Amino acid sequence: MGRPDRFLKACRRLPVDKVPVWLMRQAGRYMPEYRALRKDHSLLELVRDPDLAAEVTLQPVRAFDMDAAIIFSDILPVLEELGFDLSFAAGEGPVIANPIRSAADVDRCTHTPGRGRLEATCEAIRRVCRTLNGDLPLIGFAGAPHTLACYAVEGGSSRDFALARHFMQEEPAAWGKLLDLLSGVVSAYLQAQIEAGARAVQLFDSWIGILSPDAFGSTALPRIQSIFEALERFEVPRVYFGTNMAALLPLLHQTGADVIGIDWRVSLVHARNLYGPEIALQGNLDPTVLLEAPEKFCAEAKRILDSMVGQPGYIFNLGHGVIKETPPEHVQALVDFVHAYQR
Amino acid sequence: MGRPDRFLKACRRLPVDKVPVWLMRQAGRYMPEYRALRKDHSLLELVRDPDLAAEVTLQPVRAFDMDAAIIFSDILPVLEELGFDLSFAAGEGPVIANPIRSAADVDRCTHTPGRGRLEATCEAIRRVCRTLNGDLPLIGFAGAPHTLACYAVEGGSSRDFALARHFMQEEPAAWGKLLDLLSGVVSAYLQAQIEAGARAVQLFDSWIGILSPDAFGSTALPRIQSIFEALERFEVPRVYFGTNMAALLPLLHQTGADVIGIDWRVSLVHARNLYGPEIALQGNLDPTVLLEAPEKFCAEAKRILDSMVGQPGYIFNLGHGVIKETPPEHVQALVDFVHAYQR
Repeated sequence: MGRPDRFLKACRRLPVDKVPVWLMRQAGRYMPEYRALRKDHSLLELVRDPDLAAEVTLQPVRAFDMDAAIIFSDILPVLEELGFDLSFAAGEGPVIANPIRSAADVDRCTHTPGRGRLEATCEAIRRVCRTLNGDLPLIGFAGAPHTLACYAVEGGSSRDFALARHFMQEEPAAWGKLLDLLSGVVSAYLQAQIEAGARAVQLFDSWIGILSPDAFGSTALPRIQSIFEALERFEVPRVYFGTNMAALLPLLHQTGADVIGIDWRVSLVHARNLYGPEIALQGNLDPTVLLEAPEKFCAEAKRILDSMVGQPGYIFNLGHGVIKETPPEHVQALVDFVHAYQR
Repeated sequence: MGRPDRFLKACRRLPVDKVPVWLMRQAGRYMPEYRALRKDHSLLELVRDPDLAAEVTLQPVRAFDMDAAIIFSDILPVLEELGFDLSFAAGEGPVIANPIRSAADVDRCTHTPGRGRLEATCEAIRRVCRTLNGDLPLIGFAGAPHTLACYAVEGGSSRDFALARHFMQEEPAAWGKLLDLLSGVVSAYLQAQIEAGARAVQLFDSWIGILSPDAFGSTALPRIQSIFEALERFEVPRVYFGTNMAALLPLLHQTGADVIGIDWRVSLVHARNLYGPEIALQGNLDPTVLLEAPEKFCAEAKRILDSMVGQPGYIFNLGHGVIKETPPEHVQALVDFVHAYQR
């Protein structure tokens, strides 16, 4: 297990003994322990059972020297709070049986707290925190309103979310209303996660990259700002992560995030030059590199670490989630390499 | 029909009477004339029959006031020149039955000119040019080596081309060899298109956005350069188009392109500031906007046109291909709006 304060100190841009490291989707199908549980349980069963969710959260923490745990869940169950009917088709992606197809559909959405069984995730957080007992911080998370709204309109995943893009243009008021509804749900959910024990929170905005900078500024950005503002009083680090957002990079300091996580398509040095030392950075090893031989991914990790030497406020991570074909011993080798790294 | 020299003049950054306009995928499923032909013919049948391909190419030129035609084809048939077995599953994307799975698979690839029946496309170009009779320029095109290699390894389309990204890291020499092979095929193919009558050529690099700037510079870029260099003696404008390439934008002037086409995620003004007046620009209306009411897409087109006023070397286009649900009358209204535009 990693060190209790490394991750949180780096989020606050304080000096650390070693570069902290955790990996997005560090609990998941690449681990045999996880696959064993998935034989008897669906993804949503694992998410909705506090014992199982806590167990899955702890699997990578027990197996590797991670500097943070992240609660095991999915970004989409919050949609159930607004009445969306969510399922995961076997071997495929998420399916929303009653997607948004008109402005009237948005009007019918109401927030009924508890309908989404998010309390199970908060209970899992409490259990994980009891087990961790202060030895490691737990990160809570949620999907960002834009990405959640994309799924709500598209009805599932998509290569380019053309339906969602169409809807946001045809019905800007309804799209804005949907974003506001989701902001309220996400905000309350993240607050509940913090109250349950999460020591940091990350907003995942997987599909923010479909927006132009103008559209981002006028639709997605104000909702991220309002969520992060509402969390300010808790004084926990707020991480914003998106992919494919090179064109949006110059705007991201406006989110109010303490930490910005970037994918492998953009360079950390470029981000640092844009934001200056006031914002911590997280990322950005290409997860496919972790499928290669250790000398290869360690060389790539070294290149990244070299570029951040002497920069306070840097957290090592991948540029996206761990790929399910990744050998677990590669994850251990990477984490050890980051911790052993000396300039 | 538009004006014969507007498009070519804008490519060369010469003054024009009106902003030239053509649309990517201007021939396609949104047109009832095209759907009528597709009832009896598959996509590949249309591509491989010079009469049908010429007919489809001319459909949007007859229907709308386009300033250029683009030959009807697909980027993937060039893969057949290297022995790949290509088909299009009904209602789904392309399927390559014998994808690259190892370095040895690349070694087995050899270029057998004529195997891919690309001559049909060149013959279609000759027929279109005879019909157009100099009244309108015809654009030839090909996929860029990186994007073609992604399909060759992945075996079809994909959300993130993880197999291809894995392969390019695990087997950099084989990936490079595959890119070189494809560069040779693409280069010869574009030369043949120019010799058949194409007055400009566009390289489509749909999946370039999965690369980091470093990877782009060391793998994809030199092959684009060599293709464009080989075409230099023909003195036809060379257009480079990719999507999701905001992070790569500062490198694209190195491609040797006369015109750079960008998607809706990046701003034309930003591109102009990067490249200066030496490179013409093409784009970038979000194709989903064209599903909206005319007052909406015209307002968006006006915003784009306003931003390029007084900039020589600008060609109006979408940021990606026309979506199949687009009403044909919207295409006409857009083209008319661009031509009627006055500062």
